[in-house]
Amino acid sequence: MTSHSESELAFLSIEQASRLLRRREISPVELVEVALARIERWNPAFDAFLTVLAEPARRHAKLAEKQIRRGGPRSPLHGIPISLKDNFLTRGIRTTAGSKILADFVPKTDSDVAVKLARAGAILLGKTNMHEFAYGITGENPHYGSSRNPWARERISGGSSGGSAVAVATGMGLASVGTDTGGSIRIPAALSGIVGLKPTFGLVSAEGVVPLGVTFDHVGPLARSVTDACIVLEWIAGKYPRGATRPDHRKLLKNRPRRFRLGMPKEFFFERLDPEVQSLVDAAAQKFESLGARIEEIWFPRLLTSIGQATNVVIGEASHYHESQGYYPERAAEYGDDVRGHLEWGHRLLAVDYLNAIEKRREIQKEFTAIFERVDVVLAPTSPIAAPRIGESAIRIAGERETAVRAELLRLTRPANLTGLPAISIPCGFTREGLPVGLQLIGSRWGEAQLLSIALAYEEATEWHKHHPELD
Amino acid sequence: MTSHSESELAFLSIEQASRLLRRREISPVELVEVALARIERWNPAFDAFLTVLAEPARRHAKLAEKQIRRGGPRSPLHGIPISLKDNFLTRGIRTTAGSKILADFVPKTDSDVAVKLARAGAILLGKTNMHEFAYGITGENPHYGSSRNPWARERISGGSSGGSAVAVATGMGLASVGTDTGGSIRIPAALSGIVGLKPTFGLVSAEGVVPLGVTFDHVGPLARSVTDACIVLEWIAGKYPRGATRPDHRKLLKNRPRRFRLGMPKEFFFERLDPEVQSLVDAAAQKFESLGARIEEIWFPRLLTSIGQATNVVIGEASHYHESQGYYPERAAEYGDDVRGHLEWGHRLLAVDYLNAIEKRREIQKEFTAIFERVDVVLAPTSPIAAPRIGESAIRIAGERETAVRAELLRLTRPANLTGLPAISIPCGFTREGLPVGLQLIGSRWGEAQLLSIALAYEEATEWHKHHPELD
Repeated sequence: MTSHSESELAFLSIEQASRLLRRREISPVELVEVALARIERWNPAFDAFLTVLAEPARRHAKLAEKQIRRGGPRSPLHGIPISLKDNFLTRGIRTTAGSKILADFVPKTDSDVAVKLARAGAILLGKTNMHEFAYGITGENPHYGSSRNPWARERISGGSSGGSAVAVATGMGLASVGTDTGGSIRIPAALSGIVGLKPTFGLVSAEGVVPLGVTFDHVGPLARSVTDACIVLEWIAGKYPRGATRPDHRKLLKNRPRRFRLGMPKEFFFERLDPEVQSLVDAAAQKFESLGARIEEIWFPRLLTSIGQATNVVIGEASHYHESQGYYPERAAEYGDDVRGHLEWGHRLLAVDYLNAIEKRREIQKEFTAIFERVDVVLAPTSPIAAPRIGESAIRIAGERETAVRAELLRLTRPANLTGLPAISIPCGFTREGLPVGLQLIGSRWGEAQLLSIALAYEEATEWHKHHPELD
Repeated sequence: MTSHSESELAFLSIEQASRLLRRREISPVELVEVALARIERWNPAFDAFLTVLAEPARRHAKLAEKQIRRGGPRSPLHGIPISLKDNFLTRGIRTTAGSKILADFVPKTDSDVAVKLARAGAILLGKTNMHEFAYGITGENPHYGSSRNPWARERISGGSSGGSAVAVATGMGLASVGTDTGGSIRIPAALSGIVGLKPTFGLVSAEGVVPLGVTFDHVGPLARSVTDACIVLEWIAGKYPRGATRPDHRKLLKNRPRRFRLGMPKEFFFERLDPEVQSLVDAAAQKFESLGARIEEIWFPRLLTSIGQATNVVIGEASHYHESQGYYPERAAEYGDDVRGHLEWGHRLLAVDYLNAIEKRREIQKEFTAIFERVDVVLAPTSPIAAPRIGESAIRIAGERETAVRAELLRLTRPANLTGLPAISIPCGFTREGLPVGLQLIGSRWGEAQLLSIALAYEEATEWHKHHPELD
């Protein structure tokens, strides 16, 4: 039926795959078999999936084949094999949230996103590995093994949506959906060399997601290109408020702004960067200038002074969830050390400090709102460093004193969670060691359409997203 | 100019006074002089005012006289002497919030309500006494003396808007505006024998109010009749959402529903009542039946189990405010014992317990929303007891074991603060000792128009609101 190699099929874009499916040049069955073969071969080495749904996926692929033959694809995701992070409830399918506590939890209901993906006709390959309860940024997991970086197995994938990023980067499915509470989509996307989009808070329903911090939890796609991320977003998004432009992958390039204003916050976002990250992001800024961007230096004085306190909001919310479920402190021994540590700390957090954090967050939100009257997007690195080694807890950046890996990885992504603003990580190059580096673009509230079109302009002008790891 | 006695002028309704002002049968100067004379004579005995603005009030009265002579009154409040609780910021006028900490605080800006009242042409007589920082329900104040019950000087007025209630009940001004975080408008209104309305949360701006609990603080009128309360509300209210009926005192009686459904929650709201309160409220329910009400028994199972925890929300918010201002713990010694005690407790409240309280509050809100699909208003006592004696901290109700006065006074008013629903207290009779008793009606969200028209129907059919205390 097809003349495409396994590797070609595994790394098709959703747009390409959907075109081929429509023309019946390939079948969903082929796409699923290629993905399952890669999972079987590589998952033991990369720990991307916690649950593989081989038989259900094959069954759905056959059904999709029939449906497409009869009436054509009902969406660009119809017949496309994808994965879902294991904190999305899936009816009848084990949902662990990467935890031991939920090791045997089989939900009776589906998350909203699972329902939407099924309606679009996407085929679920499996549930992906993640940092326990999404409460960590490295993707290291003491219960199920740590998901591995596709470019260097001894390094972290980043987290918490680590398995999703690894699956997409290694051709085990064409896209995935993850969650991002402090950077959990963008960080693994950056460290694994793919695209990760955290939409505006509330755009994609978090109903049926095992929560981390209910006012921070964002649902969004991980994909191999901006267009693919846009397609997934279109099919999982809820309603936009009146007046906002709904992103449409067919219009992305047409609507690309010829001239746009790009804010570069030298303070905070460009402090203490690995020199290689710094020079790749600087080069990306120059590329943007050649594409019509006017670069403006911007400042976030409130962010600088308040972010430390503001993050107490998520700590309080996470602890409240785990206590209200009777997980903590009752089952404290079943947590990994890091997550137990966070919960211990959060349990002692005072209400006055939580409320102070709410106030600080509001100040930061106001500051960002004002900035977006001056610029269209904010440009920054996604992470100050490329992927550290698994088990590495402290790091020395640019010759400065040692700091905590966890804090460094979260440092530049957290602001978009505090503000609820949409933010995307796209590949912007590789270190000399061959590790991918991510560029972060933060957009205005409900400004996904503009954010994606600016990201796409860069992607079209560069080749970084076309590189895939050679597995061995 | 006038043939009205001092006492007649002092106890005019706003509607009557406004009509006489329009016809130039009386002058704002007369109204203000009568009010000031009463303040001079009785305030030392009742401690209703912390600051009396005699000269500014006289000046404004002369100005209003001229304006009305020229163009007629610009609102039903034009030329009407009123008072304002001392937690509303007033530009250039000391605003103590009943505290020692703010004893010398002279704001540079006006609260929204002060601006709106000035725009309507109301004449500010002074700032009224209150429970320190509004953090108490008795109106007892260790710094400025306790406001006294108009019907029995040795008894509390109720609080925290105690001075406002006493001023209105004793004819020191025609109305007042207070705040209600747990019952602080309704309780002093009930114990002092007047009308107190807590509107839907957010309807009246709390901007420029020294806060107690920012998600509980409601601003509303204290007046001697339902119509007067409605008039004040009309001039201080913000916008209603589309579709809601804005109350209009001229339409109140016209719009009165002929048949309406009245919910009586026997559990919670009718537990542990003073037998005299019980029988007066039962009599009121019968009166409502004769007015066309169908009485339905209703239940609030979630309220019963969750209200204790839910009140942690306000405790957390109050402590956060006092800490963020640097008042507590830095100036702990300057608080009265009771407020210091609350802040000590709130300082130790855990974030997880605060968040649990938020969740419990949400459950209670849902429960009330469902009830208002079945009934138009909920009928309950405002307070389970008539005014206790000043200094009395424990009480025995209906022969049961002793309980805390503070907790008992708050018990029946708190639910409407947790839910943000509008609630009014209206006089429904007197105990054998001659102490007034209040009837509470709770309405649906943004349902002030219906709530007021039902309250007015009862008021018109009864004489309780026509009694005024004989001062001696």
